[in-house]
Amino acid sequence: MTERRKLRMGLVGGGPGAFIGPVHRIAAELDGRIELVAGAFSQSPERSREAGVKFGIDPARAYANYQEMIAAESKRTDGIDFIVITTPNHLHLPVALAALEAAIPVMSDKPATATYEEALALEAAVKKSGLPYGLTHTYAGYAMVREARAMCAAGKFGAIRKVAVEYFQGWLSKPLETTGHKQAAWRSDPARSGKGGAIGDIGTHAFHLLEYISGLEVTAINATLRTVVPGRRLDDDCNAFVRMNNGAEGTLACSQVAAGELNEMRMRIYGETGSLEWRQQDPNRLIVKWLDGPEEIHHAAAGYLSKDALAVARVPSGHPEGYLEAFAILYREFADALTAWKDGNRNPLPATLPGIVAGVRGMRFIERVIESNSREGWVEF
Amino acid sequence: MTERRKLRMGLVGGGPGAFIGPVHRIAAELDGRIELVAGAFSQSPERSREAGVKFGIDPARAYANYQEMIAAESKRTDGIDFIVITTPNHLHLPVALAALEAAIPVMSDKPATATYEEALALEAAVKKSGLPYGLTHTYAGYAMVREARAMCAAGKFGAIRKVAVEYFQGWLSKPLETTGHKQAAWRSDPARSGKGGAIGDIGTHAFHLLEYISGLEVTAINATLRTVVPGRRLDDDCNAFVRMNNGAEGTLACSQVAAGELNEMRMRIYGETGSLEWRQQDPNRLIVKWLDGPEEIHHAAAGYLSKDALAVARVPSGHPEGYLEAFAILYREFADALTAWKDGNRNPLPATLPGIVAGVRGMRFIERVIESNSREGWVEF
Amino acid sequence: MTERRKLRMGLVGGGPGAFIGPVHRIAAELDGRIELVAGAFSQSPERSREAGVKFGIDPARAYANYQEMIAAESKRTDGIDFIVITTPNHLHLPVALAALEAAIPVMSDKPATATYEEALALEAAVKKSGLPYGLTHTYAGYAMVREARAMCAAGKFGAIRKVAVEYFQGWLSKPLETTGHKQAAWRSDPARSGKGGAIGDIGTHAFHLLEYISGLEVTAINATLRTVVPGRRLDDDCNAFVRMNNGAEGTLACSQVAAGELNEMRMRIYGETGSLEWRQQDPNRLIVKWLDGPEEIHHAAAGYLSKDALAVARVPSGHPEGYLEAFAILYREFADALTAWKDGNRNPLPATLPGIVAGVRGMRFIERVIESNSREGWVEF
Amino acid sequence: MTERRKLRMGLVGGGPGAFIGPVHRIAAELDGRIELVAGAFSQSPERSREAGVKFGIDPARAYANYQEMIAAESKRTDGIDFIVITTPNHLHLPVALAALEAAIPVMSDKPATATYEEALALEAAVKKSGLPYGLTHTYAGYAMVREARAMCAAGKFGAIRKVAVEYFQGWLSKPLETTGHKQAAWRSDPARSGKGGAIGDIGTHAFHLLEYISGLEVTAINATLRTVVPGRRLDDDCNAFVRMNNGAEGTLACSQVAAGELNEMRMRIYGETGSLEWRQQDPNRLIVKWLDGPEEIHHAAAGYLSKDALAVARVPSGHPEGYLEAFAILYREFADALTAWKDGNRNPLPATLPGIVAGVRGMRFIERVIESNSREGWVEF
Repeated sequence: MTERRKLRMGLVGGGPGAFIGPVHRIAAELDGRIELVAGAFSQSPERSREAGVKFGIDPARAYANYQEMIAAESKRTDGIDFIVITTPNHLHLPVALAALEAAIPVMSDKPATATYEEALALEAAVKKSGLPYGLTHTYAGYAMVREARAMCAAGKFGAIRKVAVEYFQGWLSKPLETTGHKQAAWRSDPARSGKGGAIGDIGTHAFHLLEYISGLEVTAINATLRTVVPGRRLDDDCNAFVRMNNGAEGTLACSQVAAGELNEMRMRIYGETGSLEWRQQDPNRLIVKWLDGPEEIHHAAAGYLSKDALAVARVPSGHPEGYLEAFAILYREFADALTAWKDGNRNPLPATLPGIVAGVRGMRFIERVIESNSREGWVEF
Repeated sequence: MTERRKLRMGLVGGGPGAFIGPVHRIAAELDGRIELVAGAFSQSPERSREAGVKFGIDPARAYANYQEMIAAESKRTDGIDFIVITTPNHLHLPVALAALEAAIPVMSDKPATATYEEALALEAAVKKSGLPYGLTHTYAGYAMVREARAMCAAGKFGAIRKVAVEYFQGWLSKPLETTGHKQAAWRSDPARSGKGGAIGDIGTHAFHLLEYISGLEVTAINATLRTVVPGRRLDDDCNAFVRMNNGAEGTLACSQVAAGELNEMRMRIYGETGSLEWRQQDPNRLIVKWLDGPEEIHHAAAGYLSKDALAVARVPSGHPEGYLEAFAILYREFADALTAWKDGNRNPLPATLPGIVAGVRGMRFIERVIESNSREGWVEF
Repeated sequence: MTERRKLRMGLVGGGPGAFIGPVHRIAAELDGRIELVAGAFSQSPERSREAGVKFGIDPARAYANYQEMIAAESKRTDGIDFIVITTPNHLHLPVALAALEAAIPVMSDKPATATYEEALALEAAVKKSGLPYGLTHTYAGYAMVREARAMCAAGKFGAIRKVAVEYFQGWLSKPLETTGHKQAAWRSDPARSGKGGAIGDIGTHAFHLLEYISGLEVTAINATLRTVVPGRRLDDDCNAFVRMNNGAEGTLACSQVAAGELNEMRMRIYGETGSLEWRQQDPNRLIVKWLDGPEEIHHAAAGYLSKDALAVARVPSGHPEGYLEAFAILYREFADALTAWKDGNRNPLPATLPGIVAGVRGMRFIERVIESNSREGWVEF
Repeated sequence: MTERRKLRMGLVGGGPGAFIGPVHRIAAELDGRIELVAGAFSQSPERSREAGVKFGIDPARAYANYQEMIAAESKRTDGIDFIVITTPNHLHLPVALAALEAAIPVMSDKPATATYEEALALEAAVKKSGLPYGLTHTYAGYAMVREARAMCAAGKFGAIRKVAVEYFQGWLSKPLETTGHKQAAWRSDPARSGKGGAIGDIGTHAFHLLEYISGLEVTAINATLRTVVPGRRLDDDCNAFVRMNNGAEGTLACSQVAAGELNEMRMRIYGETGSLEWRQQDPNRLIVKWLDGPEEIHHAAAGYLSKDALAVARVPSGHPEGYLEAFAILYREFADALTAWKDGNRNPLPATLPGIVAGVRGMRFIERVIESNSREGWVEF
């Protein structure tokens, strides 16, 4: 038995005040397969170095910008094995392109890019490069999301007829972006966020999870977008009808002005004989209801689950796993894929790990929602 | 102190196999203000008599049909004080008209009639008669619905921005109407149910409760209707966007093919600073969430509630009241109104008791949903 | 098909300020089998008459005291069929004895009497009279309590090994009895309540339900009693270990100083292969957990329930029934028994309806808890 | 700003089949302050090496036993900064003593030792050494446990009157120890587990958390122990009354034969004006109930929490943290303490991190429970 060395990761973004950068660091390293060794943490060289110290990496590898990092790391014999992108959305494409250009695999925060056109460009570049590309749709890493997906794939509920997806937050109920709040500021700035506000930030998660769990694809959408907080420059609330490729229909709603909600992502899928319900804020339980029997609660790590769900359990049933652990599953799968790719496997990404195809669909979702909203009616996906 | 005699009630419907008739009997009598004394329980004279025996009334007052009941009771000195209509929808109008004609006040199951046109006719007749008319939108009788309504009226959440209403059942997931199931049969038969399937049966409840709690009115609607079960003759699933008269928007969904759901009526209303959530299946709790403080659970009959909510509590906090008790509140309010009316009050119905205006709006809702669905877009309400 | 007339009930207690009297009236009449026709509602003749008016009965039948009621009603051809006792505990025995003496069946609020010695005397009188005697341990009327009982009886969980029963309230956290609070005053007064405070008021419910659901009997108890609020004259908090007749053990706790709790009666029973949990504040659900399968929630009125549970359902699954409906089940069963008794059945009481045996055990429970507490150790039951 | 190098950790235990060893590795490294560099993972040299490969450490540092590890690491300039003990209980003391002897700080899984006498010996050795010693009572690391502790310390509920603690699992409902199940085998073997079965494995957690949250100390205990599964050699079920140093009383129950329960640790603490409830399986919520106001749910990472609770939050409110993150908080605090100790602070352990005092009390708890059980009554603590 031979264990490989840890894979070396370079992080773009994650400087002081960032939320998601440190999360990527924890998630990437959690299963002991990856270590953060380099970063371009901030556009300010000084703050990048400061972040490097805090992350405990070699000060020489805290770079002033991603270009510098890619150039320098490419020359090292112990250079990074892959790059992680956690910048505001408008930088996703240039960083990814530069990395791919330098033959460095990419793990990217979602959404894949800032616009649909960019996503198509990125998809072409990924395909051309032949390099592994992963997209951190975090919720796809939860054990009970895997269980839900496995149950749908196994046809446990008969044909799926109806879906109800929602992702409600309340934290943008006030115009935080005018108060110096860093997270609110870039998310509501079209130049950095792209065309989507709430639909880009959280709607894409809901959309992805719907397709991921159901195994279906959205084929048409009828959406209505609103900007509820006066002065805000992007949408903060969206309601949509969706039609799936098997004829099922339902709703997909997201909001960042649902005052009082924290991070209420909830997914319900109804089939002919039963249904499932999963909530991100109660992630270790999957609620299963039947037409003719008692309601069930399936618990993470329990012996009766599918092998897909058990494969991602780290601790016994009754010991809650959370957001970071879900995140880390994606990194574990990416690490496996990267290892396989280094071993010559040209198609190493597992179906469970979101990649560029999911990225393009997510950007298409934003574009289609905006189009539907402006037409006030259904549009084909 | 003088207590009046119990008010005498005559029931139309409620024969063998009926669900809602016996419920009306229990609800009407629960607070000791009303007694069932007469009925036209079935269109079969024999079955009507049989039901009368079961209900424990004088056999002479178990009539073969409503016309006979109205005629006979009108001649008695101890005749009925009001009539209750619990038939399939297509009979609501003729029974109500006959009663009003005979100067008999009416308490009716919802929806008010089978079509919007009928509702307008009924509204005219009610107005002309000057008689009390009540509509049993049961959920309006729950204490915590009253509390939710009071909180909205008091502006506790600031301006309302967003609503999310759903009423999901699963019992029609199979074509029960083809199996001799009485409840399923008339509900899916346009001749008896009217133009609406699920939207008439339960959508009208959701619509009513939205306006009842929020204090707002729906001004536009964009709905998509489906008949999911092959061969069914009316809709069994509906998703809609709604726009309220203050600019708030949201979703209203109902379904009778949401396999595994029992009677999942859930109402969420989001304002600028907080939100509320109420579920019919957990009716003694009102969940209140704030932008800047802990989530709260308000319990029925607790001392901190509004006087509106406390007015309808019968037992101390922690002793659950349910569907029948909510139903009975409407009857208690109707009994009070009827008593006041007998005393000469020409406008005795309280704002908390749904009446003909709610009835007309409910039928308008059905009609507008169908219109929106056929146009595939928004329609004014 | 012949339906009998309604049974006539006379109520002792239930005057102004009473909580449980009106509850008995609603519960008794709810299923249309019983009507309140007479009462000795208060020890003040004037207040008794006032209550009579409020209850809508013939003023001549609102008596000044129970002796008068029994005497007068016994002479009427339309006299009461049974008497209901809802007084403070110290009157339970004399009222019951007087009724039995006059050949009037008895339905009594719990506990059966004020002391164990009284309970034995009452048991003797009941046996001697041969009359039906029922005891309103309300929670025994809930559908899901019936389901829990049926599951235990059917051995669904294998041998029962462990029980955990608790009944927590917080309303006596302050010395309410010193503030003129009527309910608090008599409950904490040994002259009216008997030897037990919280253990009599709610501990007896917990004890009864444990035996009722499990089908087992308590054979030994080790209890510790406290009076937490200074100056209070009876216990307000109790923790106990219990040993059952099959060797199972567990805890039984009750408190009226558990600040913040409303009416938290919760029962858990663990067997070899699974367990059940029922909470009075969420009464329409029974939680069932298995050693090797998903957790289940069984819903009231669902088709998969036992016939015992379905026998007491009035409305379809998803329509909550509550405290009053549970109470009414006991009255319905008492009405059936009384009818059978009038027809000559000398042993008409069903096993599901608590009676004098449960009453004696409940009083024995109070006596044994006090004995164990004073001995600071186990006592045989 | 200078960031120190990561602290180097050596692990004892954690070989193939172990549950808790890998958990310690993840938890220790999660916050980027610690790295696993050495281990004596198994008593089989070969399996130890195998585990070392799996953990990705230098093969030369996967030792055949702890003595060897301590000897070898002590000679390295880059030797381990501290040792982590995750063996069965009987090895806790010898490993700890050997480490302390070699001036190596210790982080130990609980319970501290196998017997109370051993704990006293360990306490003496820790004191004599002056070295940091931490004990991983994991649940102490949860944010909402910190919040609960802060609320009690701040007197939010007035004087504490009543406690109710339980820790129920069901996984030992069958004699797993006879089937080759490694976890079950050592836990039910007195030679490896010590005198306590369930009370040692999980009862000590419940006991610790009670004192940790309430800020009170147990002063007397009355416990009843059982071995429910025939043939088992240690207790698998325990019920106890506890008396606290302020006069509060309550129950502490633990079981590993509560069939159907996963890892149900639940803590309720009642004061004069309100109460709190925390469940390990729903760890991001703290339920707070008041005598005179709505029930509240306090959410992890919300702005209204105490600074103690916010100090341990890594992700925004609504993003669940779980068992591993709680565990990692203890390691983060230990890393801080170790760093401070290296800087000369002789008393660096924070009050929030369980240490040898908690370890001794835990072992005292086991010993007192056994004593109380044999005496069948109260014993002083």
